[in-house]
Amino acid sequence: MPVNRRIVLASRPAGWPTEANFRLVEAEVPQLQDAEVVVRNHYLSLDPYMRVRMDDVRSYAKPVEIGGVMEGETVGEVIASPSERFKPGDFVRGRMGWQEYGCAPEALLTRVDAQRAPLSLYLGALGMPGVTGWVGLVDICAPKAGETVVVSAASGAVGSVVGQLAKKRGCRTVGIAGGAAKCRYVVDELGFDACVDYKAGRVQEDLRAALPAGCDVLFENVGGEGLDAMLRLMTAHSRIAICGLISQYNATEPYGYRNLRSVLVNRIRMQGFIVSDRMELWKPALAELGELHAQGRLKYRESIAEGLASAPRAFIGMLRGENFGKQLVKLV
Amino acid sequence: MPVNRRIVLASRPAGWPTEANFRLVEAEVPQLQDAEVVVRNHYLSLDPYMRVRMDDVRSYAKPVEIGGVMEGETVGEVIASPSERFKPGDFVRGRMGWQEYGCAPEALLTRVDAQRAPLSLYLGALGMPGVTGWVGLVDICAPKAGETVVVSAASGAVGSVVGQLAKKRGCRTVGIAGGAAKCRYVVDELGFDACVDYKAGRVQEDLRAALPAGCDVLFENVGGEGLDAMLRLMTAHSRIAICGLISQYNATEPYGYRNLRSVLVNRIRMQGFIVSDRMELWKPALAELGELHAQGRLKYRESIAEGLASAPRAFIGMLRGENFGKQLVKLV
Repeated sequence: MPVNRRIVLASRPAGWPTEANFRLVEAEVPQLQDAEVVVRNHYLSLDPYMRVRMDDVRSYAKPVEIGGVMEGETVGEVIASPSERFKPGDFVRGRMGWQEYGCAPEALLTRVDAQRAPLSLYLGALGMPGVTGWVGLVDICAPKAGETVVVSAASGAVGSVVGQLAKKRGCRTVGIAGGAAKCRYVVDELGFDACVDYKAGRVQEDLRAALPAGCDVLFENVGGEGLDAMLRLMTAHSRIAICGLISQYNATEPYGYRNLRSVLVNRIRMQGFIVSDRMELWKPALAELGELHAQGRLKYRESIAEGLASAPRAFIGMLRGENFGKQLVKLV
Repeated sequence: MPVNRRIVLASRPAGWPTEANFRLVEAEVPQLQDAEVVVRNHYLSLDPYMRVRMDDVRSYAKPVEIGGVMEGETVGEVIASPSERFKPGDFVRGRMGWQEYGCAPEALLTRVDAQRAPLSLYLGALGMPGVTGWVGLVDICAPKAGETVVVSAASGAVGSVVGQLAKKRGCRTVGIAGGAAKCRYVVDELGFDACVDYKAGRVQEDLRAALPAGCDVLFENVGGEGLDAMLRLMTAHSRIAICGLISQYNATEPYGYRNLRSVLVNRIRMQGFIVSDRMELWKPALAELGELHAQGRLKYRESIAEGLASAPRAFIGMLRGENFGKQLVKLV
């Protein structure tokens, strides 16, 4: 019998997680039963929201229990199936968590086409991060041609999609990213008009210089000082989509936002969202992203860690911004 | 010739304004010229936004200049008119500022019916504050029957209207006000289901107790600690209309909001607004408010200062919450 390795939550972090908060355990590979499809996972997606699930606090989803398998999206190959819809050899996306094998009811799996795109892309630009970018930009912020769109974490899995969709809509697009290499990538490869390096130590001045006419649409992935600085630069009737606040997920004291008054002065609409609330938008989002990909116009970058055991370190690195583009773990 | 007395901005306040920031000056009563209607003002409205206009900072409107007449809405009687629309003896609402007489083009004046309601009401529940409450509640927050609506500054000109409109829509309605007398009025007269006294020293605990199922709609007039506490109590997919932040208008250091993360966790929509952006909504708003008034169901309360010279003191008192209901100055 092959062994199914999995990573469980060993303990809850206080502030920044460490590898000691995770534990690699062995279990049996799930057998065909209960009408569930058995999948061998090829890629595991690592995403910032997982940090929130490690805390025992109220959020939009329940925390992972101590000893429970860490949650996460996966793509993999069906190895056993009672289903008419899926047969062994098919590739599917699901939420199998941080483990090498998993099983799930067919209703929770989505077929992916390994001919059309690399499997990993279904966890990135053609998956949840891509749809997240589309929903926040297109549905929530509805940018018009000529408007200025700012995207934090611009080189990341979500931000890179947001910037490309905004450019396609005729917007001036300004990224915020950490370090010169990411900023160069954001401008040279992703096609943003400008990118501010928040690690350069003068984020307020640099944002102001990059936004002479202010910001009409802010797609926020980071929070903290950058969001506070951006609040001062928003134009009248501007929109802010709050997609993530990664700078705050490890904070033991929450950041105090001093510029909220701008919401009143500038009649800003600020909207928090999570993509799973908007399942009806996956179809139009993936239609546009899929077409861009088919045309060879959808740029993306991946950081791929090798083997399940590397997941905790890769995850912690991603929280520190050490990844470049979509962070994945290759399991096969 | 009668004398026109007016109050001008003598100097900009640093923090809380004092009476020394204002100066009473005399001028001639405007004569009929330039096709402008001349009005003798009966009532001047005092509103929190005027504090913002005293500062030399970017806001949604330009600051009052040093030496300039303080801005403000007025109702009064036409005493000279070149207009077909208005004749002497007609009553009109306009923005004549803090003075006993004023003139304006007819396009900037609105006729009011002194038979239908007391003149002062056209500066309160049947005027800008009433429409502000309607726009923020009905258009921006769209509460559904059974939802819980929280209103800060609940006994004030705007808040009192919001609470009554929310109750009419079948909402559970919770006010926040300063002091036991205002809280009693909010519940006993205005018909709110509960009211939290923010001066009682345990606003977080009292809000939590008053909101066992959380808050679906927050109509915010105050900002600061109360808004920060409310952020933690918002439900999933809740809405916040930011109408005013009066607690911050005299602050030399802005409040740091620590609970903004709730916007993401609860997918809150937060929208700043000013009523003058939504002129098309005055008609439906005044239709509903006028009908309520005609039925004797629109409750309101006024604090009326006597004579123009009392305006600065009354204005400063209003910023401290010493008024009870709509603050006006009676000029005739």
